[in-house]
Amino acid sequence: MPRYRLDIEYHGGPYAGWQRQDGPRSVQEALEQAIKSFCGETVSLRAAGRTDAGVHATAQVAHVDLAKDWRADTVRDALNAHLQMAGDLISILSSSVVEPDFDARFSATGRRYLYRILNRRSPPALEKGRVWWVPKRLDAEAMHLAAQRLIGRHDFTTFRSAQCQANSPLRTLERLDVTRTDDEIEIRAEARSFLHNQVRSMVGSLKRVGEGAWTADDLAAALEARDRAACGQVAPPDGLYLVGVSYDGDSPTKC
Amino acid sequence: MPRYRLDIEYHGGPYAGWQRQDGPRSVQEALEQAIKSFCGETVSLRAAGRTDAGVHATAQVAHVDLAKDWRADTVRDALNAHLQMAGDLISILSSSVVEPDFDARFSATGRRYLYRILNRRSPPALEKGRVWWVPKRLDAEAMHLAAQRLIGRHDFTTFRSAQCQANSPLRTLERLDVTRTDDEIEIRAEARSFLHNQVRSMVGSLKRVGEGAWTADDLAAALEARDRAACGQVAPPDGLYLVGVSYDGDSPTKC
Repeated sequence: MPRYRLDIEYHGGPYAGWQRQDGPRSVQEALEQAIKSFCGETVSLRAAGRTDAGVHATAQVAHVDLAKDWRADTVRDALNAHLQMAGDLISILSSSVVEPDFDARFSATGRRYLYRILNRRSPPALEKGRVWWVPKRLDAEAMHLAAQRLIGRHDFTTFRSAQCQANSPLRTLERLDVTRTDDEIEIRAEARSFLHNQVRSMVGSLKRVGEGAWTADDLAAALEARDRAACGQVAPPDGLYLVGVSYDGDSPTKC
Repeated sequence: MPRYRLDIEYHGGPYAGWQRQDGPRSVQEALEQAIKSFCGETVSLRAAGRTDAGVHATAQVAHVDLAKDWRADTVRDALNAHLQMAGDLISILSSSVVEPDFDARFSATGRRYLYRILNRRSPPALEKGRVWWVPKRLDAEAMHLAAQRLIGRHDFTTFRSAQCQANSPLRTLERLDVTRTDDEIEIRAEARSFLHNQVRSMVGSLKRVGEGAWTADDLAAALEARDRAACGQVAPPDGLYLVGVSYDGDSPTKC
């Protein structure tokens, strides 16, 4: 019973997030249906990042066990054909046979997210649903400097959803870089793992710094408070992309 | 009666093209409705490029005369508000008051288009509707070299739609560059003006070069033939973007 690793791109807009649930269609459900259509098997996929509704991925990783020994390329092409037929905005970028102890979620040693802000007076047309539109000018340099106060091992309770199911609010943030190119601000976050809504919560608070409402000290104080109420606005899902997952002994996926 | 220049971004997907027509909604119609909602006037817009159904723009230019002397920023913001309310994927990037003899179409001295090909085995998910998906590997360098054979003043009958209304098939192609970045091939075309479907026809023929079906000589022979039947496939509208329009005495819009 070979185990397959799937590297997956999707547009989060039409989906209720990664996780299968009662109600609206999820990315997991769409993929499990494609697998069922391809080989008749009812399977359960596990992914590195359980992205929320509306969150995108350029490099999600999941694994699945199939009864038959298919060629990895066949799995990729067949699933893509079924996803296309179903009208899904999901694409299998690659498929590979992995060791039976590979676990897309629990073997992951790093996750990388990108958050895109369109920072201009005019609303997005071409990028609608793919960016957070912030019309007021933000100071990206101030945001970057403040962001460095969040780097390291901290109790991130302030930047954690009330629904977060993690046992501990302690996380080690490796990177939080803010850069501007023309009208677009990109925020790149990297950690072994993140709490639920952590990136969007940090971005929402960084926006307060960018618009001058908060200083870097205010951001540090919010972290120190370990209190959800100290968090700024949670940034919308539209601008968030899972862009990379790392595994030990693995060359990192693209960022 | 002041004349306003509008710089416009739009996602071509939902529209029947720029031009107002009986039937499906066009970009022009959506904008004229927004103007009507804003100031009650029934106007007619003229644009630099009459893009086809599904073709996008990051820098379309149009002009319109309004009875009242509005501040240019007010026009931009009010139209954006009405476009947003109507659910349109159209955004006014800027508005400015121009001389009464400025004509978005007839004063234009240059037009720039970008064509995007997603050249990978897996279909687009995030970029669906915004690129031409070509799964077979293309040789971008060969495409670029061949493209140079089309530069200059020629009879472009081969690369002209049967519906083209231009008086002459003669055009001067200033630039046709093909570059690859990872899985994406970008083709940048520049001319004073283009024939109907000219960019998409040239791109479709360049794809034949990229897949090895045509040599650069074949492309040159197709041009020489001055025969629509000699053209390769016409590339789909999804990958095409109007990215710049130039005017004399004007700093060029972004490319």
